[in-house]
Amino acid sequence: MINKKNLKLGTERSAIRELFEYGKKQKELLGADKVFDFSLGNPSTPAPKEIDETITDIIKNESSVLTHGYTSAAGLFETRKAIAGSITNRFGVKASPEEIYITCGAAAALCTVFGALTKDSDTEFIAIAPYFPEYKVFAEGQGAKFKVVPAETKDFQIDFEALGRLINENTAGIIINSPNNPSGTIYSKETLEELSSILSAKEKEFGHAIYIIADEPYRELVYNNKSVPYIPSIYNNTVVCYSYSKALSLPGERIGYVYVPSFLENSAELFAAVAGAGRAMGYVCAPSLMQKVIAKCLDLPPNLEDYKINREILYNGLSELGYECASPDGAFYLFVKAPNGDGNKFSEMAKLKNLLIVPGESFGCKEFVRISYCVDTETVKGALPLFKELIEEC
Amino acid sequence: MINKKNLKLGTERSAIRELFEYGKKQKELLGADKVFDFSLGNPSTPAPKEIDETITDIIKNESSVLTHGYTSAAGLFETRKAIAGSITNRFGVKASPEEIYITCGAAAALCTVFGALTKDSDTEFIAIAPYFPEYKVFAEGQGAKFKVVPAETKDFQIDFEALGRLINENTAGIIINSPNNPSGTIYSKETLEELSSILSAKEKEFGHAIYIIADEPYRELVYNNKSVPYIPSIYNNTVVCYSYSKALSLPGERIGYVYVPSFLENSAELFAAVAGAGRAMGYVCAPSLMQKVIAKCLDLPPNLEDYKINREILYNGLSELGYECASPDGAFYLFVKAPNGDGNKFSEMAKLKNLLIVPGESFGCKEFVRISYCVDTETVKGALPLFKELIEEC
Repeated sequence: MINKKNLKLGTERSAIRELFEYGKKQKELLGADKVFDFSLGNPSTPAPKEIDETITDIIKNESSVLTHGYTSAAGLFETRKAIAGSITNRFGVKASPEEIYITCGAAAALCTVFGALTKDSDTEFIAIAPYFPEYKVFAEGQGAKFKVVPAETKDFQIDFEALGRLINENTAGIIINSPNNPSGTIYSKETLEELSSILSAKEKEFGHAIYIIADEPYRELVYNNKSVPYIPSIYNNTVVCYSYSKALSLPGERIGYVYVPSFLENSAELFAAVAGAGRAMGYVCAPSLMQKVIAKCLDLPPNLEDYKINREILYNGLSELGYECASPDGAFYLFVKAPNGDGNKFSEMAKLKNLLIVPGESFGCKEFVRISYCVDTETVKGALPLFKELIEEC
Repeated sequence: MINKKNLKLGTERSAIRELFEYGKKQKELLGADKVFDFSLGNPSTPAPKEIDETITDIIKNESSVLTHGYTSAAGLFETRKAIAGSITNRFGVKASPEEIYITCGAAAALCTVFGALTKDSDTEFIAIAPYFPEYKVFAEGQGAKFKVVPAETKDFQIDFEALGRLINENTAGIIINSPNNPSGTIYSKETLEELSSILSAKEKEFGHAIYIIADEPYRELVYNNKSVPYIPSIYNNTVVCYSYSKALSLPGERIGYVYVPSFLENSAELFAAVAGAGRAMGYVCAPSLMQKVIAKCLDLPPNLEDYKINREILYNGLSELGYECASPDGAFYLFVKAPNGDGNKFSEMAKLKNLLIVPGESFGCKEFVRISYCVDTETVKGALPLFKELIEEC
């Protein structure tokens, strides 16, 4: 009487988690300094000190019953208002609290949006490779089909011809993740404008909205003053899924939001269906104390210093050794072409040296590996000689 | 392109929420002291002070990266160990950390268990009326069918004949909620033993496990030293869904667990499928700071004093006025027979006096109303004269 799909999801770990669990065991066996673990996207810098001060302050001065009590399903009004205000100030798109639905992080945000947009089992969502592998799990979990546009590995923008071929009457949405996990690249304004015009044409052709689902947990992690275009200001039918996990180093606290702009098609219905999908999955409300914290701390700048240092050492080091990388403009990942052309084999070779890097296959790019540089700088420095050995062995 | 079922769930509020939102508006209009709101099951007593001390202590003394970081999907090992230890100590059932899956509250726990046990669209879950109405939403959300055993309104135990008729080859589980929302009654040892023997016979007849899904958020809210039998010690194939929402007044923090005892049938598969269902819904992990708090605070006694006072005033007051109630042994609800025999009409009559009580229909008992006495004592006292007027008008 067990659901086979869920059994499989619970039994087979993701390639990322598999490698991470292997690393944990190796560290116990050999000592932490002998294992170079670049598997997980878990922020390595502490949350800004204002976060902890705000938690302590709320606990000390505010009502326990209100702080720890149920909020409405969409979240505390004060937090929704703060989020809408921040969007308005930062991106020049006029947002209101009623358009914000607070969630248990970006994963919950994506699941509720997929749930809201899955009309029936013919519904399709499209991701652009390389892509975060759980998108497939989340979309299929809501009963939809999942399709992938092959990677354009020259500059990791979008292969529009391939995308055009995949869009059909059942396409409900395209997932756009910028800055991208795993490539670290940012989709340019030109890319997004071309995407917008293609989608608008397809909307006319098929007679219904095709939404962009903008998954933006890495928006704040950007280097060299690069800017990340705000997609709702380019393409109207955009739903934003956001998380404070990476920007504020709060991944375990599960706090983020869905922004359903009132200017998109079927906005009121889509917002209600997001709420309904959350209800059906048992998302009663997002954690209440964290909602209060976010109301006060949402605009704190991220702590980028450690990532900047790691990124520089690693990108320069690997480039000097002859590795080819995607342009690491944002997030905390390097997406590196395996010198032997085979990400799986290269990851296995690295594993023998206790260097843990994720094969690109699960992101839809077999010939690459992902290196998460949200680690301490000693790990980065210690890994470079191993990368040298590896490229010499290829 | 919008999912109709989720749109409906997001548009039509539950009867409970509907009444609560009405109450909020009336309070703004008339003043809070003019509205007697008994709609929500939101704890009215603060969390034990040790909770807030523990939060402050963790924030002050422990690593930010670990406190706010991702935990494994099943939760922090230290917390799973503390929970297993508490089950072992309190209920004489030997539990281990590997059997505990920490969740975002009981709602998430129930959804993951329904997801794990829904083999296909023929799968059925059975609830015993009166029952928490979201069970239907959660079970159907996972693609299963939902059936209800009509209430046995004499003593609110179980109508076994009716139950027997509902069980068939597709029955995956029976939801048992004790102490019960909305009746406040506790299922007796005798009731559970009879249930156990019926289910065991049906398991043999149909050749597969029929699980009890024990939903236990009210386990700690019990009066007059009544005891709440621990179902896994009576019936092997029991999965426990627990939440700290009510016992520790933390409903907004979303923290609870699923306990899948290793002695139940297909235990390892069921545990994996629970994890898989959680993954498919985007439940990455339960809130990390709260996991750490629970590891230290899980056995704190609930603050029952206010509920005891309210319960006494209300139960005695209503009984004296001639109302008939289910035996209020636990939780913070009175389930009262409408003097006119029609819970909907009686709730409407009460609403005209700004007395907000939930019609029993949504719990599967049309002739009753639910009164949540997790309110301040002045509200209870102020409501009694209105209840007097109401019974005289019937």
